[in-house]
Amino acid sequence: MTDDSSRAFVPGHVTGFFSVHEADDPEQAGSRGAGLTLSEGVTVEVEPAAETGMQLNDEPAAIEAVTRVLEELDVDAYVRAETDLPVGAGFGVSGAAALGTTLAANRTFDCGRSENELVAVAHAAEVHAGTGLGDVVAQARGGVPIRLDPGAPEYNRLDGVPERTRVEYLTLGERSTSAVLSGNTDRLSEVGVDKLVRLVEEPTLATLMAVSREFASEADLLTSEVESVLSEVEAVGGEAAMAMLGETVFALGNGLSRAGYDPETCETHPAGATLQMD
Amino acid sequence: MTDDSSRAFVPGHVTGFFSVHEADDPEQAGSRGAGLTLSEGVTVEVEPAAETGMQLNDEPAAIEAVTRVLEELDVDAYVRAETDLPVGAGFGVSGAAALGTTLAANRTFDCGRSENELVAVAHAAEVHAGTGLGDVVAQARGGVPIRLDPGAPEYNRLDGVPERTRVEYLTLGERSTSAVLSGNTDRLSEVGVDKLVRLVEEPTLATLMAVSREFASEADLLTSEVESVLSEVEAVGGEAAMAMLGETVFALGNGLSRAGYDPETCETHPAGATLQMD
Repeated sequence: MTDDSSRAFVPGHVTGFFSVHEADDPEQAGSRGAGLTLSEGVTVEVEPAAETGMQLNDEPAAIEAVTRVLEELDVDAYVRAETDLPVGAGFGVSGAAALGTTLAANRTFDCGRSENELVAVAHAAEVHAGTGLGDVVAQARGGVPIRLDPGAPEYNRLDGVPERTRVEYLTLGERSTSAVLSGNTDRLSEVGVDKLVRLVEEPTLATLMAVSREFASEADLLTSEVESVLSEVEAVGGEAAMAMLGETVFALGNGLSRAGYDPETCETHPAGATLQMD
Repeated sequence: MTDDSSRAFVPGHVTGFFSVHEADDPEQAGSRGAGLTLSEGVTVEVEPAAETGMQLNDEPAAIEAVTRVLEELDVDAYVRAETDLPVGAGFGVSGAAALGTTLAANRTFDCGRSENELVAVAHAAEVHAGTGLGDVVAQARGGVPIRLDPGAPEYNRLDGVPERTRVEYLTLGERSTSAVLSGNTDRLSEVGVDKLVRLVEEPTLATLMAVSREFASEADLLTSEVESVLSEVEAVGGEAAMAMLGETVFALGNGLSRAGYDPETCETHPAGATLQMD
């Protein structure tokens, strides 16, 4: 890290179920739903540069939400993002990169924004880019976020499931968030709101996993491969669901390994996105 | 820890400035203001018991907000609270004990409440007990919380200063929060709202410390001993303020040690209150 660079860590986020809420103002657009933030996440380093550029895991990369954030903050910077999470598989890597960039750039360039303002910048950038609707606000909160109302902090309402757990995950392939979100999401959203009502009635991890599993099936998002993994975890008494939107299965405790898989492991993350100490 | 007990950690919280907002409903009452959450805090363990009781640092203790929380959750429990923070010196120990008790009791007894509901229970218990108005919601958020609107999560609005820092603190004696809060707080609140406007305009640690220092003086809460420590820190170029409400000075970085004192040290805490993993 150079003298004038700053670093932030943003937890990964898997969404279990959601509904889409459109609005002309990207700060008011977003999703409702719930998921898990993860102790595996994205570390973002921002340093001043003559011209904006970025890399992801040491390779040149282009994440539109990151570029939009730097434009909005009116700074030229080089962004280095590092993650052990699979990219394009439903872990909120683009949202994490955008949010980490706002936090680190605000410090590097003394932008003087508040936390809510920085979250709003990253949320709007993600919505504009079409790469996510709810990851950023969930990643800013940490824990097991419930998104009661959509949008940036000025508009949204969040709650959380007060539990922590070990998490296992297994990625079977990639899926484009923007491809799904650009299609008709009416049916999906109807199911998502229904599941949110259930979770609010009983805000526990057990309920979150049960309604997420139902959501994937009722919203017609399950692939046969994901469905078969979910069934095998269920057969050994485990709780698993599909990450929205990715070919990824996540399970509480050791659900996937008990079913004979060789998953990655982490925990729910107790904190939201944070700057790192110098 | 026994099999059926649960533990939570809640960061300490020093308030730099505040205003009092009364309401008949304790969930709507509270304070506005800002401060620092601290990596030093209170660990709370809750286990089922035939009769409710508690201890603080291995000594029998009675914290009214804790008893009220257990009554509200309708459980009988034994609560063990441990902290290295000074008690009765402006670090939010009673709020931390109450909030930690709600989180741990919710898990121990499967109460099925959401995070916001648990924060509301602890906040209302503190307000009822007269021992705090804003610590609980700040401690639930973590970081450097700005309390824009008072009350429990359903009513309040929070933001944060997106910075982290090393913190030093020095306690010169005790002061009763309830004694100050039960007096006339009109002038204090007028000054507090004024400082909040300044911090919102420029949400940085430097501004937080500057307006907190002004608040203590203009609200007539400075004792001569605290004032002399603040002056000495300022004389060596440090930033310090008085913890509301306690005979405590807190400083950024190494402000107190540079001025020749032998303070305790910690950091701002990046997370809000959390259950501990089993």
